[in-house]
Amino acid sequence: MKLPPRLCDGRQRVVVLALRPEVDGGRYPIKRVLGEPLDIEADLLADGHDVLGAVLLYRHESGADDQWTEVVLEPQGNDVWRTSIELGTLGRYYYTVLGWVDNFATWRQGFDRKVAAGNEVMLELLEAAQQIEAAERRAPSSDRGLLLEAAHVLRGSAPVAARIRAATAPVLAATMTRLADRSRASRFRRELEVIVERPLARCSAWYEMFPRSTGHGGRHGTLRDAEARLDYVAELGFDVVYLPPIHPIGHAFRKGPDNSPTAGPSDPGSPWAIGAAEGGHTSVHPELGTLADFDHFVAAAHERRLEVALDIAFQASPDHPWVREHPSWFRARPDGSIQYAENPPKKYQDVYPFDFESDDWEALWEGLRDVFLFWCGRGVRCFRVDNPHTKPIGFWEWCIRAVQQAHPDTLFLAEAFTRPKLTYALAKSGFSQSYTYFTWRTTKPELTKYLEELVQTDVVEYFRPNFWPTTPDIFPEHLVHGGRAAFVSRLVLAATLSSAYGIYGPAYELMEREPRTGAEELARNEKYQLRAWDLDRPDSLRHVIARINRIRRDHAALHANRFLRFHPTDNDLVLCYSKRTADRRDVILIVVNLDPHHTHAAWIDLDLDDLGIAADETFQAHDLVGGAHYLWRGGRAYVELAPDVMPCHVLELRRFARTENQFEYFL
Amino acid sequence: MKLPPRLCDGRQRVVVLALRPEVDGGRYPIKRVLGEPLDIEADLLADGHDVLGAVLLYRHESGADDQWTEVVLEPQGNDVWRTSIELGTLGRYYYTVLGWVDNFATWRQGFDRKVAAGNEVMLELLEAAQQIEAAERRAPSSDRGLLLEAAHVLRGSAPVAARIRAATAPVLAATMTRLADRSRASRFRRELEVIVERPLARCSAWYEMFPRSTGHGGRHGTLRDAEARLDYVAELGFDVVYLPPIHPIGHAFRKGPDNSPTAGPSDPGSPWAIGAAEGGHTSVHPELGTLADFDHFVAAAHERRLEVALDIAFQASPDHPWVREHPSWFRARPDGSIQYAENPPKKYQDVYPFDFESDDWEALWEGLRDVFLFWCGRGVRCFRVDNPHTKPIGFWEWCIRAVQQAHPDTLFLAEAFTRPKLTYALAKSGFSQSYTYFTWRTTKPELTKYLEELVQTDVVEYFRPNFWPTTPDIFPEHLVHGGRAAFVSRLVLAATLSSAYGIYGPAYELMEREPRTGAEELARNEKYQLRAWDLDRPDSLRHVIARINRIRRDHAALHANRFLRFHPTDNDLVLCYSKRTADRRDVILIVVNLDPHHTHAAWIDLDLDDLGIAADETFQAHDLVGGAHYLWRGGRAYVELAPDVMPCHVLELRRFARTENQFEYFL
Repeated sequence: MKLPPRLCDGRQRVVVLALRPEVDGGRYPIKRVLGEPLDIEADLLADGHDVLGAVLLYRHESGADDQWTEVVLEPQGNDVWRTSIELGTLGRYYYTVLGWVDNFATWRQGFDRKVAAGNEVMLELLEAAQQIEAAERRAPSSDRGLLLEAAHVLRGSAPVAARIRAATAPVLAATMTRLADRSRASRFRRELEVIVERPLARCSAWYEMFPRSTGHGGRHGTLRDAEARLDYVAELGFDVVYLPPIHPIGHAFRKGPDNSPTAGPSDPGSPWAIGAAEGGHTSVHPELGTLADFDHFVAAAHERRLEVALDIAFQASPDHPWVREHPSWFRARPDGSIQYAENPPKKYQDVYPFDFESDDWEALWEGLRDVFLFWCGRGVRCFRVDNPHTKPIGFWEWCIRAVQQAHPDTLFLAEAFTRPKLTYALAKSGFSQSYTYFTWRTTKPELTKYLEELVQTDVVEYFRPNFWPTTPDIFPEHLVHGGRAAFVSRLVLAATLSSAYGIYGPAYELMEREPRTGAEELARNEKYQLRAWDLDRPDSLRHVIARINRIRRDHAALHANRFLRFHPTDNDLVLCYSKRTADRRDVILIVVNLDPHHTHAAWIDLDLDDLGIAADETFQAHDLVGGAHYLWRGGRAYVELAPDVMPCHVLELRRFARTENQFEYFL
Repeated sequence: MKLPPRLCDGRQRVVVLALRPEVDGGRYPIKRVLGEPLDIEADLLADGHDVLGAVLLYRHESGADDQWTEVVLEPQGNDVWRTSIELGTLGRYYYTVLGWVDNFATWRQGFDRKVAAGNEVMLELLEAAQQIEAAERRAPSSDRGLLLEAAHVLRGSAPVAARIRAATAPVLAATMTRLADRSRASRFRRELEVIVERPLARCSAWYEMFPRSTGHGGRHGTLRDAEARLDYVAELGFDVVYLPPIHPIGHAFRKGPDNSPTAGPSDPGSPWAIGAAEGGHTSVHPELGTLADFDHFVAAAHERRLEVALDIAFQASPDHPWVREHPSWFRARPDGSIQYAENPPKKYQDVYPFDFESDDWEALWEGLRDVFLFWCGRGVRCFRVDNPHTKPIGFWEWCIRAVQQAHPDTLFLAEAFTRPKLTYALAKSGFSQSYTYFTWRTTKPELTKYLEELVQTDVVEYFRPNFWPTTPDIFPEHLVHGGRAAFVSRLVLAATLSSAYGIYGPAYELMEREPRTGAEELARNEKYQLRAWDLDRPDSLRHVIARINRIRRDHAALHANRFLRFHPTDNDLVLCYSKRTADRRDVILIVVNLDPHHTHAAWIDLDLDDLGIAADETFQAHDLVGGAHYLWRGGRAYVELAPDVMPCHVLELRRFARTENQFEYFL
C-alpha cells in the first residue's frame, strides 16, 4: 500500500491548512484595487514544536507560471501566519503559500535552552556544523565563505564559549534561515486568484442620463447636446457619466409612451430595443449622431475627468442586423419565426433574446465579447451590463476575463436585480460592481442587516455594491411620498454607506416623483419618450449633491466599505454609522433621520474603540454638510435632525493633539 | 481566445456553487456513523428562471470510480437544494452533485401560464412535441411508446383542449423529468468524502485500567487477573476497556516511582517505554502473560459486550528490537549514539522517538501501520493513539486510511493534548475520536463556549470529542479540593455533554486525589508503580457511574452531540443544557451545580421551541438519577442542588398526549 498521490514525499511535514481570503474554496477570485493592501493569512501546521518557515508566493498573470515573487509570512500565534502585500499591476494575480520545517532554527531553539541550563553541548555544536555544511552545498557563492568559516569554528578546538558564540551569531541565523532546505516544503493545495482593478472599481459616483433628453425646444437630443451637459455633471462631482444604450433603435413592435404596445410615428422607442437597419451593438443611433460624435463626447468627458459608461444590453430588436447575419444565435420556433422575449403571459415582441444553447454558441460568445472590445477601442472603460442574470454565468466569467486581458482597466457593473445567490454568483464571476437591494432597504434593521452582510462577511472579498436610490426601471414607494427629505436622505445613505453609488438624473435632483399607475416606475418614463428637464429650478438638489460628492472626494474614509460600523441609537428612526480608514486618520460619522416627516432626536452609543478615540477624550464633530462644530466627550452623544432643514449629519470626527504649548487639530 | 479549460461546453448553464457539509473546501472528509443521516445541501444556480433538475451522486470506495448511486435533490427555495441519505456500509464514500436545466419542465412552466391566460398555444404544443421526440431517441424501450404517442397527439388534429390535456399529463411530466437531457449537466468541481464508522465512534464510554494493578497481594497483575476485572467494568456499564501499552518494558534508563530517574530492581517501569529483549510493539510484556492470554482477554471482554482498546505509543525504549533491526528509523548523532526524546533542558533517555525525516521513511510508515494491522488480527478494533501530534499529520492520514481499508470497523482515538488547530488537523486526518480540553474547562462560560465551538460550528463534521475528567497524565486542580461532589459533577458533565467519554479507573471511582507535588498528576502514579485498589470501598462512585452509563444507554438523546443546547440560568454556578434526538422523541435536560461546596438554586429559562414543548403545555421532568418527578409548565423552572446530596439533575422531559378519555405519557 503506497502513498496516496497527493503526498509525494512523506517527509513533507508541514500542512498548509487554510489560506485566507478565499471564495468558495478558491474556485473564484477575490478582488482588490491598485494601492489597496491585501492581507493574507494561512494556517500552517506541523507535528511537534519545530520552528517553521513560510512564504507567500504570488505572480501576475502576464508572467511565466513559475515566476513567483516571495514574501515572508510572519507567525501570529495559534498557528496563524500573515503578511500584507500591495499589488501594483492591473489584472489577475495568483497566490499560494509554501511552508517548511526550518531545521537550523529548530536546532537553535533547543540549543539556547540547553546552554541556559548549563548542559553539555559538544554534540549539538557538531550537529549544527553538519547542517551548516549541508547549507553550504546549496548556497550561492556569496554565502559560502561565511558558512565554511562557521562550520570550521564549530568543529574546531576553540574554547566552548567561543564556539557557542559562533553558533549563535545573528548573521549565521539569518543566512541559515534564508538558505533553509525547502526540498520537503509543502505547498497549499491550489493557487488562489485576485483581480486587481482601478480604484474607480471600488469608489465611484455615477450619473445616469438619457442623451436624447438634452435637446432644446422639444428636439431629439444628440451626443453634441449631451456633451454640453458634461460641465453640469462634472460640477455635481460625479466620476462616471453613464448613458443608456446609444445604438439604433428597432422599429418592429416599437413601444410608445409608458410602455404602450403601439408607438406613434414620432415616438422614439426604447433604447433597449437594440438594432435597426442602421446597425446594432457597435453602431450609434442616427438621431444621436455618429461614431465621430461619440468619440468627441468621450474626449470631452475625459477633459472634465469624467469617465463614460455605456449600457450594454445583450438582446436584439427584430430589425437588428444579426437577426439576418446570424440566425443561429436566436431560437427558431416550429413555424420558422424567432422566439421573442416572454414572461408568460407577457410578450415582448420588440426584443429577441440570444439563444445561449445554440450550437453556434462559441461564435455568439465571441461576437458579444467583441462588442465590449469595440467600445474599448473607442476609449470606453466602464460598462453597465443590462440583465446579466439572463445570460449564462459561465459566459460572464469567460467574457470579463477576455476583455480585461486585452484592457485591464475595464470595469463592469452588473445590473442584476435577481435572487441573492445569483447576484453574488455574477460578482464572483468577475463583475467589478453590482446593483443591490439598497433601493428597497429603508428601515434601520433592514439597512443594518444588509450592510453587515455586504461588508462584514466574505461577501466583501468579491462583491462591490453600487447603491442606486432610483433607476429608470425602479421608482420605490418611499420616494413617492417622502418629499425632499426622502430624496436627500436616500442620496446621503447611498453615497456614504457604499463607496460606489449612482443616481438617475436629472429626474433625481429635480425630485421627479409621480409614479406610473400600477408600476414601480416614474410616469412619463424617459425610457419611452423624450423629457425636457429644467436644471436651474431653484428647488433642485444639485447643490446638496455637489456637496456630498465633494465630501466623498475629500475623505478617504468614504472610499471603501470594509470599515463601516453601525452605532446603536435609542431611536429606531435614527440610523448612525461610521466609516474610517484602516489607520483611523480619517473618521466620518453619519447620522440619518429615516423619517422624512418628523423631527427626531436620539442618544447615540459610539463604539469609541473602533473609532480610535479614548473614553475620556474630548473630540470635535464637524458637520461637513451644515458646517456646525460640536465638542463631544465619551461615547454618548445627542443628535436632533429636522427633516425639513437637513435630515442627515455627515460629521468628521477630529481628535486633538497636545503639543508643547497648545492644542492642535489633527488633520 | 478560446474557453478556459474548466468550461468544456459553454452550454452548461448550471453552476453548482457550494456543496455542504464540507471541510476545508473538500480537502478533508466529514464523518458519520452507520444509521446516522447525512443531510446534504447544494447551491445550484443558472441564468434566468428555467427549471433545474439535480441529483446527489455517491459511491462507496469499494466500487468502481463511475458507479454512482443517484438521489434526487429537492429545491428548498433561495437556490438551495437538499436531500438526506443514510450510508449503510463502513468505509469511505465519495459524493458530488450534478445539475442541469430541465427543458421540458421549463417549457411546462410557461405553457401553464399561457393556457391560464387564454393565449394561443399551437406553437408551444409543437415545441413540446419536438422535445418529446428528442427524449424518445434517448429513452429506454419501455418509455418509447408513451412518448411517441404523446408526440403524435400533440402534433395531431385533436381538439386543442385534448392536446393540452395530453401535453400536461402527469405521467408525461414524470417521464420527461426522468429522461431530462443531461448532456450539458454541470458537476460540482470535486468529489467530497465522508468516512462512515460504527456507532461506537460517536457514542462510547471508555474505562482505562492498568492490568498490572489487578494482581492480588502486591503481585504484578496479569492479563488473566485483568480478565477477572471485566465483570466489574461491564457492571459499571462501560463500552470499551482500554489498556495502557501491554508491550515489553525497556530496562535502559527505566524510571522509578513518580518518574524518579533511577528505578530499583523491582520497579516495573513505565508501560510507555516500549520494547525489550522480549519484543516490541507486537509483543506482550512477559509479566502480563502471553499473546494467548491476550486473545483470551479479548474473547472474555467480547462475551461481556466490551470492546478492548489498546494504547499505541509510537516510540521505543533503547532495548526495542527495532533499534537493532532498523537503525535507520532513528536519528543518529555525530558520535553514533541515538537521539533520545528531549524537551530541553529535560532529557528522556528511556525513550527514542522515530525519525520521520529518515530516508527510510516508507518502510517506517509501513512498519507502524503493521502494528495496528497486527492487533487488528487479534481482534482489536479500538486504538487510543499516544501523542499523535508528535508524528507527521500526513502519516496519520495515510495510516488510518490504510488500516480502515483492511478493517473498516477500526476506531482511532487521538490523545493529542496540543494546540487547537493541530488537534483539529489530526481529527481531519481521520481520527475517529479525540481527547479535548474538557479536562481543564470548569466554569459556565468556559464550558459553554467550548461546547458551542465543538457542536455548533463545522467542527462537528469531523471532530468527535471524547471527554476525560482525568487521565494518568492529568489530574486537574479542581478535583484535588472538590471532594465527592466534584468527582460526581465532572463525571456527569463528561458523560452527558459528550456522547463519548472515559474515566481512568479505579482511581476515579475511588476518588483518589492526592496530587504529586509540582505536577498536575496523582501521587504514587500508576504509570510507574503497581497500585492495589479496594473496589468495594463503600464510598466508591461505582453505583453512580453505573446509573449514569445506564441512562446513557437508554437515551438516544445522549448518543450524539449535534442537538446540544445551553439554557440560560440566573446563577453563574448553575449550568443547564439539553440534548435531544433529531425528532425530539427523547429529550434530556441536565442541570449541574458547578460549586462542589455550596447549595445553589437557580431559575432556568428553557428554550421550549428547541425542546419541542408548547409555551402553555404542562410537561413532566423526571430525574433519572434521583427518581423525583416534577410537573413544569412554561419556560421558567426552579432548581436547587445540594452538592453533598447530588450536584446534578439528569431529567427526562416527557410531554403528555391527550387521547380520547385520558392523559397519557409519551414514551
